[in-house]
Amino acid sequence: MTNSEKAYAVIMAGGSGTRFWPLSRSNRPKQFLALGPDDRSLLRATAERVWDVLPPERTFVVTSEQLREQVERELPELQPEQILAEPVGRNTAPCIGWAATHVKRLDDDAIMAVLPADHYIRETEAYVDTLRRGLEAATHGDYVTIGIRPGRAETGYGYIEVGSEIDPGVFRARRFVEKPNRQRAEQFVANGNFLWNSGMFFFLASRILEAIDQHLPGLGRELQRYDVAARAGNEAALVRETYGALPAVSIDHGIMEKVSAVSVVPGTFEWSDLGSWTSAWELASQDERANVLPEGAIAVDASGNFVSAPDGKLIALVGVQDLVVVDAGDALLIVPRERAQDVREVVAALRERGDQRR
Amino acid sequence: MTNSEKAYAVIMAGGSGTRFWPLSRSNRPKQFLALGPDDRSLLRATAERVWDVLPPERTFVVTSEQLREQVERELPELQPEQILAEPVGRNTAPCIGWAATHVKRLDDDAIMAVLPADHYIRETEAYVDTLRRGLEAATHGDYVTIGIRPGRAETGYGYIEVGSEIDPGVFRARRFVEKPNRQRAEQFVANGNFLWNSGMFFFLASRILEAIDQHLPGLGRELQRYDVAARAGNEAALVRETYGALPAVSIDHGIMEKVSAVSVVPGTFEWSDLGSWTSAWELASQDERANVLPEGAIAVDASGNFVSAPDGKLIALVGVQDLVVVDAGDALLIVPRERAQDVREVVAALRERGDQRR
Repeated sequence: MTNSEKAYAVIMAGGSGTRFWPLSRSNRPKQFLALGPDDRSLLRATAERVWDVLPPERTFVVTSEQLREQVERELPELQPEQILAEPVGRNTAPCIGWAATHVKRLDDDAIMAVLPADHYIRETEAYVDTLRRGLEAATHGDYVTIGIRPGRAETGYGYIEVGSEIDPGVFRARRFVEKPNRQRAEQFVANGNFLWNSGMFFFLASRILEAIDQHLPGLGRELQRYDVAARAGNEAALVRETYGALPAVSIDHGIMEKVSAVSVVPGTFEWSDLGSWTSAWELASQDERANVLPEGAIAVDASGNFVSAPDGKLIALVGVQDLVVVDAGDALLIVPRERAQDVREVVAALRERGDQRR
Repeated sequence: MTNSEKAYAVIMAGGSGTRFWPLSRSNRPKQFLALGPDDRSLLRATAERVWDVLPPERTFVVTSEQLREQVERELPELQPEQILAEPVGRNTAPCIGWAATHVKRLDDDAIMAVLPADHYIRETEAYVDTLRRGLEAATHGDYVTIGIRPGRAETGYGYIEVGSEIDPGVFRARRFVEKPNRQRAEQFVANGNFLWNSGMFFFLASRILEAIDQHLPGLGRELQRYDVAARAGNEAALVRETYGALPAVSIDHGIMEKVSAVSVVPGTFEWSDLGSWTSAWELASQDERANVLPEGAIAVDASGNFVSAPDGKLIALVGVQDLVVVDAGDALLIVPRERAQDVREVVAALRERGDQRR
C-alpha cells in the first residue's frame, strides 16, 4: 500500500447494550468482554488486528466518559489524547466527525479506518488484506465501506447492493438497504450482489469533514468550533457543554446514503456483529453434541447448550437441551437459545426496580 | 408423660449422600443443609424439635469422625461426650446399639428416641405429640416406631402394616414391608392399614441391647466390650480399632423384623425423607407458577422451576420450565426436575476423575 504512514484508526467503543447481560452491564458493555475465540476483549482484539497495518500511535478510540478508564486499562499503549470521551452518545456521525477533526489536525492528508469495537472477526489474513485494500481505495478520495459476503438470509443486518468493479477487489456501492424482512433477505442472498453492511468505513479525514459540512451543516459548524477550541487548548470544556446538543444521526443515514462515489470492498473473513448470546454460541467451538461449555464441565444427555461461567467453576448439565446459561458471579441467566433476545426483558425489569446489576 | 426425665434422644447424623449435590458434598452431607422451611440445618432442626420434649443434656448424636466438628458447630449445646463418632459407617444397628450402651450407663431405665437427622418435618404440635406418645409407649417395654399416614403411592419408602390398637393412638405393627413397586404401593394406600416407615424408633436402652444380644449376638458381644472399656476410660481406642468389623446391618432388618411386640404410633405431621431435589421443590413454598426461587429472582414465562443459589445472587429465568438449578458457588447444576435423581451420574463422573468437589 502507498502512504501507509497516512493511515489512522478510529475505533468506536462507546456502545452500551443489554444483549449480553449478565456478563455485559451498563458500566461494562460488550466491547470489554472476551466473546471471541480467545481471552482478549473485543476492543483489545479490534485494536490488535488494526495494529497489523498501522501503529498504536495512530489510533484513536471514541468512547463515553463513563468508559474512558476501562479503555485506558484495555489499551495501555494509547496516550490520553488518543481517547476521545463523549459526554453522551449521539450516534456515529458526530462520533466520526469529531474523531476526524483530531486526525486531520495531525495530518491534512490522513486516511481514517473507522472500526466498531464490539464485532467478532475471525483472525485471518483476509481481514488484513481487506483493511489494506480499503485504506488504499480511500486514498483516491472515495468513501469506502467493507461489505461481508452473506452466509445466510440474515434479517438483523443492513445490506449494500454492489455495482461494477472499479479497481481490483473494489466495487461501486449502488445503494444501502435497511434490515430487510425474511423474504427480501432471501432474495438478496439469491441475487448475489448484496453484501452485509459491516459498519467499517475508510475515507480521508478531510473528505468526511467536507461531507459533514455539506450534508449535516449544523454538525459541521460545531465540529469547526471544536477544532478552533482544540488548537487553543480548551476543547474539553466546549465538548462537555455542547456535545449533547449535536444531532444524533448515523454515518450511514447522514452521509453514506447521500454522497456519491461510495465504494465497497468485499470481505471474505468470518464476521458477526454479535447480536445475542445465540451468535456467541454459533461462533464458539462446539463439542460433538453442539455444546459450548467451560473447561471441566460435565454434560450428561445434554446438547446444544451455551454456558459461560467464572473460571474454575464446575458446571454440570444433565438432560437439558439448547439452553443459554450465563453465570456472571453475582447474577445467573438461564434462557432457551431461541429466546436469547428476551434477556432485554430482564434488564428492563432490573431498571424498573432500580437494581444496579443491569 | 410419666418419667420424662428418663427420655434420651439419639440423633443419627452420620449419613453421606449424593442426591443434593452440589449443595451437599461428601464432607458436608444433607443433614448440614438448610433444606427445610427455615435457615436451620436439618440436624439443628431435628435437635430443636426434640428439645421441646427433653433437654440437650440428654441428647446424643452419632456421626462419623469426619463430620464430628461440623456437628459440634451446629449443636454447641452438646458436650464432647454426647457426640459419638464412628470411625466408619456400619448401618443403623451398630450405631443405635453403641448409643444404647452410652445411654444405659447414665440410666438403667432410660428410654431412647432414635431420630434420623436428615429428614424434613413440618414443625407442628402433632410431631411433639407423636414423640411423647412414642416415648410413653416405650416405657412399657415395647419397641415403638412412628409410621406416617401415606399421602401418595410412594415407591421410595418402606411401609408398616398396622394391626389392632393396643393403647390410644398406639397400634400393633403387623409387619415391615420393603419399598414396594407402584402396584403394591397403590394397594397399600387403598388398603388404609399401611403407613410409611419413618425410621424413628423408641425403646428402653436395656431392651434394645437385649434384642441385639439375642438377634445379633456378635454385635452384642462387641458392644459389651465397648461398655467395659468405657467404664475403664479407654473406649475410644477400642472403637477405632474394631468398629469397622461390626456387622453392617440395619435396625429394621436386624432387630425390628425379628422381635415381637413392635408398636407403631401413626404420625399425622408432614414428613419427607428428602430423597432428591424434587422433594425439596415439593416441600418448599412455590409461587403462583410453581417456581421456588431465591428472593429477588426474575422469572419471565418460567414455571415449575426450583432454584437454589448463594444469598444475594440475582437469578433470571426466561422461558424455562420444570428445571432444578442449584448454584453452590463453586459448582452449578442444571437438570430437569423429573431427572433430579441423575445427579448421581455427575457425582460418579467427579469421583472417577478425582475431583474433590463431590
